[in-house]
Amino acid sequence: MNEIRILKTCGNARAGELSTQHGIIKTPVLCPVGTQGSVKTLTPQDVKDVGMRIILANTYHLYLRPGIPVIAKLGGLHKFMNWDGAILTDSGGYQLYSLSKLRQINDEGVIFRSHIDGSRHTFTPELAIKYQELIGADIIMVLDECIDHNESRERVWAAMVRTHQWAERCQKAHNKQGQPLYAIVQGGVFPDLRKQSAEHLTALNFDGYAIGGLSIGEPKSVTFDITEQTTALLPSNKPRYLMGVGAPEDVVECVARGIDIFDCAMPTRVARNGALYTRTGRIDIENAVHKEQEDPIEVTCNCYTCRNFSAAYLHHLFRSKELLAYRLATIHNLAFMSSLVQSIRTSILDSTFDAFRKQFLSQYKTTDEQTRVSQKQKWLETRQKDTLD
Amino acid sequence: MNEIRILKTCGNARAGELSTQHGIIKTPVLCPVGTQGSVKTLTPQDVKDVGMRIILANTYHLYLRPGIPVIAKLGGLHKFMNWDGAILTDSGGYQLYSLSKLRQINDEGVIFRSHIDGSRHTFTPELAIKYQELIGADIIMVLDECIDHNESRERVWAAMVRTHQWAERCQKAHNKQGQPLYAIVQGGVFPDLRKQSAEHLTALNFDGYAIGGLSIGEPKSVTFDITEQTTALLPSNKPRYLMGVGAPEDVVECVARGIDIFDCAMPTRVARNGALYTRTGRIDIENAVHKEQEDPIEVTCNCYTCRNFSAAYLHHLFRSKELLAYRLATIHNLAFMSSLVQSIRTSILDSTFDAFRKQFLSQYKTTDEQTRVSQKQKWLETRQKDTLD
Repeated sequence: MNEIRILKTCGNARAGELSTQHGIIKTPVLCPVGTQGSVKTLTPQDVKDVGMRIILANTYHLYLRPGIPVIAKLGGLHKFMNWDGAILTDSGGYQLYSLSKLRQINDEGVIFRSHIDGSRHTFTPELAIKYQELIGADIIMVLDECIDHNESRERVWAAMVRTHQWAERCQKAHNKQGQPLYAIVQGGVFPDLRKQSAEHLTALNFDGYAIGGLSIGEPKSVTFDITEQTTALLPSNKPRYLMGVGAPEDVVECVARGIDIFDCAMPTRVARNGALYTRTGRIDIENAVHKEQEDPIEVTCNCYTCRNFSAAYLHHLFRSKELLAYRLATIHNLAFMSSLVQSIRTSILDSTFDAFRKQFLSQYKTTDEQTRVSQKQKWLETRQKDTLD
Repeated sequence: MNEIRILKTCGNARAGELSTQHGIIKTPVLCPVGTQGSVKTLTPQDVKDVGMRIILANTYHLYLRPGIPVIAKLGGLHKFMNWDGAILTDSGGYQLYSLSKLRQINDEGVIFRSHIDGSRHTFTPELAIKYQELIGADIIMVLDECIDHNESRERVWAAMVRTHQWAERCQKAHNKQGQPLYAIVQGGVFPDLRKQSAEHLTALNFDGYAIGGLSIGEPKSVTFDITEQTTALLPSNKPRYLMGVGAPEDVVECVARGIDIFDCAMPTRVARNGALYTRTGRIDIENAVHKEQEDPIEVTCNCYTCRNFSAAYLHHLFRSKELLAYRLATIHNLAFMSSLVQSIRTSILDSTFDAFRKQFLSQYKTTDEQTRVSQKQKWLETRQKDTLD
């Protein structure tokens, strides 16, 4: 149950099968983000229909709302949200860093105030495990200490050491069968610290290994380099999970560097801002060029949205702020990502991944930094009403 | 195509069949509101799945966005929104009164400024018909002049006379086969004016008759009395449509007074505010009593939402402002209304409508005035982000 079966490799790229209590997950895989027990705008059936069988949920959010006891009382998260696929939960380490207020952190754990109502709470490694067990996730994560990407080496080192201590405590606290526990390699942008972290954690023999603390502001070349250097130090018979990375081009590049599992809020978040994926890059559906476009967003796409609606209709829904817009766009972007990871997998199994990678990246116009920044700004402005993810 | 086939009556209540270019509509029927070419939060398939075959769209809104030429170019509204059921369009008379800015009205028509961008436009009876023909609606409405419910008798009379003149101009301008045109009886809360209006318009032999200018602030007993007095003056072989009325208890009461067709934004609008229909009245799903409710909203309900999710999950989605909440709630409320009109129809066909009416009204706790007012307040506060309907 706890290991990954690698079917084929192409250089560092791997195609495999990950067994979980809720089915076999074909890898590489991208987990869409269902932070609060809902992949935003979608029913569980919609998620299945785009071809996805594993989602990410978040311990920090679920702890605050509806509360772990409510989920436990109602039979666990699968039953609560009516999802029979697999669930991976993040421990909350990242949200304690990015969302909570007045955080005090020490070796024992984290004391914080809720971003919702300011109420005071404590997370410890042991509680993070207990909550994830009660949620009933199929894969759970250790509690880690997250920090900014531009912190000093000394600060990064200290957070890494604490993350290691917490990982051991998580491992001791964890005793639920069939619920693999993944460690999180930290060490920021410092290759030697990443090496130290990977070696320390692999010696503890976790069920899987995540790489944390990337894609949080560092240059993309650094993300890729650190990923490549770290996966080389991880055991080949264990799953490797790159946290918070999931732009189409990044998935291709990081599969090439040995990653099996991704999670990212980006495909669903940008969808709600009208940024839709196509083979040649992202389009802004609110742009006037789509006003009378009778074709769907992408003619070759087989998703529900593209099978049923013109780009002009999507354009109209977005311009009119109709709530249906956000669902149709989310379906399209997740179907695009689902299709992308399936194509990657097929190409690895066919030993044609290098060609696929080259062709995809030559076609796909990466969203430039300026667009990314204005997209992020748009998101920050709307996050209050849109709720967090 | 233009008449209604009455299968059975029970007192003034009628069960019938309305033929349209997009199928036969069983009456009584409630049209959900798809103001801007989308029943808010739902796909056309969702609307079908709740058992509805006719929706209302709005000429005023569609004229402003995406624009009539866009809809015409893309093959009409059915194709644009991918809806193969029937569409009834309101002419825009009510929205010109309630939404547009700096309205100037004279015998020729209405000059107004868009509520979206303040741009200047003109509507005339002839243009209202032309636009509805281009939209391709199955049933279209004359342009009428709407005014406040507490206007003077003189003012009501003048608006009624203008509505009559415009109705004649609409009739002359209309020449599309298979697209029945309904007149709108006005006359406010004055029985003699309503009588005058009904007689004037029935003499012109329209394809159907609507009752406008009700449920806009007058006491409910007045709504019922005027409806009853007016239907008595309308030809029994023509469909009768009560505009803007659609609370569950009002539908029952107005079917009893001879109405065949209703439209109302209420079931979908209040759904988005967490007010969900049950046989015993409306519940507020955000209320703490639902926090751990494992049962669905209504155990006997067969809608997608109740078949798949607990009330506790809906409660959580609403509290967390998850967008899925609004869709699941809308599905439930429309399924409730669909089931209600079906039950009404069955009871008329079985000659048990009086008993059904008595039983329904004895069980269904009408939402009190205070709740209605605070609900409306909540809606007004959110209408900016939620867009209008």
